[in-house]
Amino acid sequence: MAHLTVSVEYGIHGLLWLVGSDEPLSSRDIAELQGISHSFLAKIFPRLEKAGIVRASEGVRGGYLLARSPDDISFLDIVDAIEGRKPLFDCQDVRTRCALFGDAPPAWATSGVCAVHVVMLQAEKAMRDTLAGQSLGDVARSFATAASPDFFPQVRNWLGERVGHRVRNARRGRSPASKRESPE
Amino acid sequence: MAHLTVSVEYGIHGLLWLVGSDEPLSSRDIAELQGISHSFLAKIFPRLEKAGIVRASEGVRGGYLLARSPDDISFLDIVDAIEGRKPLFDCQDVRTRCALFGDAPPAWATSGVCAVHVVMLQAEKAMRDTLAGQSLGDVARSFATAASPDFFPQVRNWLGERVGHRVRNARRGRSPASKRESPE
Repeated sequence: MAHLTVSVEYGIHGLLWLVGSDEPLSSRDIAELQGISHSFLAKIFPRLEKAGIVRASEGVRGGYLLARSPDDISFLDIVDAIEGRKPLFDCQDVRTRCALFGDAPPAWATSGVCAVHVVMLQAEKAMRDTLAGQSLGDVARSFATAASPDFFPQVRNWLGERVGHRVRNARRGRSPASKRESPE
Repeated sequence: MAHLTVSVEYGIHGLLWLVGSDEPLSSRDIAELQGISHSFLAKIFPRLEKAGIVRASEGVRGGYLLARSPDDISFLDIVDAIEGRKPLFDCQDVRTRCALFGDAPPAWATSGVCAVHVVMLQAEKAMRDTLAGQSLGDVARSFATAASPDFFPQVRNWLGERVGHRVRNARRGRSPASKRESPE
């Protein structure tokens, strides 16, 4: 098992579809477009909303939009929003538990940060700095450069057809609750 | 919960007692000296032995010694020995699952490493490079500098008394199995 869960992968790939989108996208449409579980993604987006990465709108055309520029959304922002700020190492201050200290560890054994923890904090910082240095915008440009020229127009059509279908159904009254729909 | 388990903390603190020790130390003595669970530590040392970080000797004076210089044992060696080489991110290649691709994702969507995974690999490398750049010897020197001058002589006495007690018991035949004792 990896340190980061699959929620991070689903969350980032979900967010990539929002880059450059002027219309809100529902988490159901994103999940189906991306071929991932909707129930899974529907639990991730509220965390991204809480972290101020996306904003939600309701209604038949509702869904999610990025809440700020993709260049201002770092991988670290996304990881922390989805996983919580999980430390690399949870120091139990084992250094203070030496049998020779009894119940009173001396000052030299308790002052400052444990030297083991110092190394772990440095490693954590190196990892977090790297994640903070890469933005959703960077990766979206990388995908856009690789994609075939007709790909994004096809995506817009695919999404537009789904929204159009929902709008027509709502007008015909087939989905009277749709005006109060969640952004799912 | 942190990314690294408490086993890593116990393992590193356990190993620190072996730095500069010419005599093997049993995992029971190390655990009691450090005030940590022996049953827990006894599961960690075989992993360190398998990774070539410690070597074990049996018998009433048996135990563990470092298998190489503490300056040649990095934090990364220890973490990988205890936790296994756990990736930061387990890429499921979600990029290939777009609904528009059907069962045949195009070459542009599958070639090379996914741009999301590239970022995660960079972050993982930054963390691992930091852990690889710090040795058990570095941290042992940091502890030795902080410790009071009488601490390590007291530790040697404490350990010596326990080994002496076992040797006397073995000579008196109170522990006939002791000659075949494991390094626990």
